Amino acid sequence: MKSIFDDRLQKAQNGVAKSLYRLIAEKKSNIVLSLDVPQKARFFDILNHVADEIVVLKIHIDIMHDFNDDFIKELLLLKEKHHFLIFEDRKFADIGNTVKAQYTEGIFKIIEWADIVTAHIFPGPGCIEGLRSAWQETQIKDRAVVILPQMTSRDNLFDDIALSAGIKWAHEYCDIIIGFIGSASVYKDTPERETQLMYLRKESLPEMLILTPGIQLDVSGDNLGQTYVTPETSISQGGDLIIVGRGIYNAENPLKSAEVYKKAGWDALVKRETEKED
Amino acid sequence: MKSIFDDRLQKAQNGVAKSLYRLIAEKKSNIVLSLDVPQKARFFDILNHVADEIVVLKIHIDIMHDFNDDFIKELLLLKEKHHFLIFEDRKFADIGNTVKAQYTEGIFKIIEWADIVTAHIFPGPGCIEGLRSAWQETQIKDRAVVILPQMTSRDNLFDDIALSAGIKWAHEYCDIIIGFIGSASVYKDTPERETQLMYLRKESLPEMLILTPGIQLDVSGDNLGQTYVTPETSISQGGDLIIVGRGIYNAENPLKSAEVYKKAGWDALVKRETEKED
Repeated sequence: MKSIFDDRLQKAQNGVAKSLYRLIAEKKSNIVLSLDVPQKARFFDILNHVADEIVVLKIHIDIMHDFNDDFIKELLLLKEKHHFLIFEDRKFADIGNTVKAQYTEGIFKIIEWADIVTAHIFPGPGCIEGLRSAWQETQIKDRAVVILPQMTSRDNLFDDIALSAGIKWAHEYCDIIIGFIGSASVYKDTPERETQLMYLRKESLPEMLILTPGIQLDVSGDNLGQTYVTPETSISQGGDLIIVGRGIYNAENPLKSAEVYKKAGWDALVKRETEKED
Repeated sequence: MKSIFDDRLQKAQNGVAKSLYRLIAEKKSNIVLSLDVPQKARFFDILNHVADEIVVLKIHIDIMHDFNDDFIKELLLLKEKHHFLIFEDRKFADIGNTVKAQYTEGIFKIIEWADIVTAHIFPGPGCIEGLRSAWQETQIKDRAVVILPQMTSRDNLFDDIALSAGIKWAHEYCDIIIGFIGSASVYKDTPERETQLMYLRKESLPEMLILTPGIQLDVSGDNLGQTYVTPETSISQGGDLIIVGRGIYNAENPLKSAEVYKKAGWDALVKRETEKED
C-alpha cells in the first residue's frame, strides 16, 4: 500500500519537508504542538508526555525563562528520542542582512537547532534571501522556512495581493520555503466565498505544506474573539498540519488531549487523501 | 529664545517622546546610532567614543554575542553617564499575546531596559495593544513604540493603504506610539511625486517623531542597490532623527564621523525649523 503523501514526498526538494512527510506517515500524526510555556520544568514535563504524538514542536525561544545552552541540549536529546522537528516561530521581518544575523548570531543561534523558522513576506523577498544565504554558508544540511501569506488577527493588512505574493515567492524559493501558515477562517476578497486556505492549496506547489493555526475541537465555547476552526474543516480545505497549543498544554491530561487531537487530525487527513484517490 | 521643538514637546503625551525632544535640544543632535556590532568589547568601545554625539542608541539585542545581564548593566551605566535613549529594533510582528510575552519575558526582558521598541503594523493593532498592555501592567513609567508604515526593501508589500493605517493607529495609540520609521526614498502612488515621508509629516500628529533610515552623507558612491538619502533631503521632507550605522561605526574615526553627521543633521534641522517660523 502506498503511504500517505508519497507523491508529495517525491516532489519535495527540501530535506526538512521530506523528513516531515516521512514523520507524518510513520507517526500517523499531523500535530504541531505550540508549546508557549516559559517555565523550563513544565515545558519539558509536558513535552516528555506528548512527544510521541506530535511531529513538530513549535516554540518561541525568546519567551523562555532561564534560557541557556543546556535548554537546547535537552531539547535535542528529546528530539533524538521521540522524533519530531523543532520549529522556532521567530516571524523574521527585517531586511536581509539583519535577519541573517538574527538567524545565525546572538545568544540563540537559531540556525543551529531550529529545523523550521517562520518569516514574514511583507518586507519583500530580501528577508527570505537573508535566511537562505545564512543556510548556504553553514555546513548544516537541512533547514526550512515557512512563510505567512495571511494572518487572522483583527484589522491586519494582509490582502489577496499579499496572498499571491506569498504563493509566488514560495515557488521561487522552494529550496528553502516548505510551506505556509494558512487558516480557513480568512476568506478571499471575491464573491465566491472561497477561503484563502482553499486558494493557497489550489495555487501553490503540491509539495508545499500548509500549517493551520487556531485549531480547536470544540468551537462552540467562549472564544473571546479568537476565531477557531475544527481539524476537519481545516484539513478538508487543504491544511496538512494542525497547530494546537492550549488545547493540549492547558488540558488536565495533556497526553490524553494530544491523542484526541492526533486522532481527529489523522482521520481527517486520511479521509481527504482517500477521497482524492477515488 | 525658544528652544527647538518646544511646541511639539508641549504636545507630546508620552514621557519618552518628551525626553527625546529635550535631549535633541540639549545635545544639539538628532543622531540615532544604529550599532549593529555583535562583539561586546568593540560595541562598548565605539559607544564610549560617540555617546555624547547621539540622542538614541539603536540595537538588535538578539545578535549580540555573549549576552548576559552584565551587558544590560553596562549599557544602563553608559546611558546614565552620557544621556541617550535605548532603542531595541525588535520589529514585533505577532499577535498581541505573543508580543506581550516577547516584550516582557524570556532572557532579554526587553521592557526593562529599552525606552523604545519597533512594531510592525501588518499584524493589525493587536500587536500594539499587546505591547501597551505589557507597559500598563508594569511599574515602569516611560516606554514607547515606533511603528513602520513603510519599508524601503525591494518588492516589499507596503502600500499607501498601509501608510494611512500607520498614521491612523499612531493617532489612536498616541499614549505609546511616539513616531515612525519613514524614508524619503519611497514615493506615494500618486502622480504628484510626493514622498511617503512628506505625507507622513503632513498627515500625522505634530508631536510624532520621524526616524529616517538609510542616511549617508556621500550618496554618490557604490551603494550595492541600497537606497541612501542625505540628511538634508530627509530632514527637509520632515525627518526628525537620522539613523546612521556603518557611516559611523565602520569609519576609521567613529567620533570624527559622528561629529560630521551630527553637524549635518543639526544644521538641516535648524534650517527647517527656522524657515518654518519665518
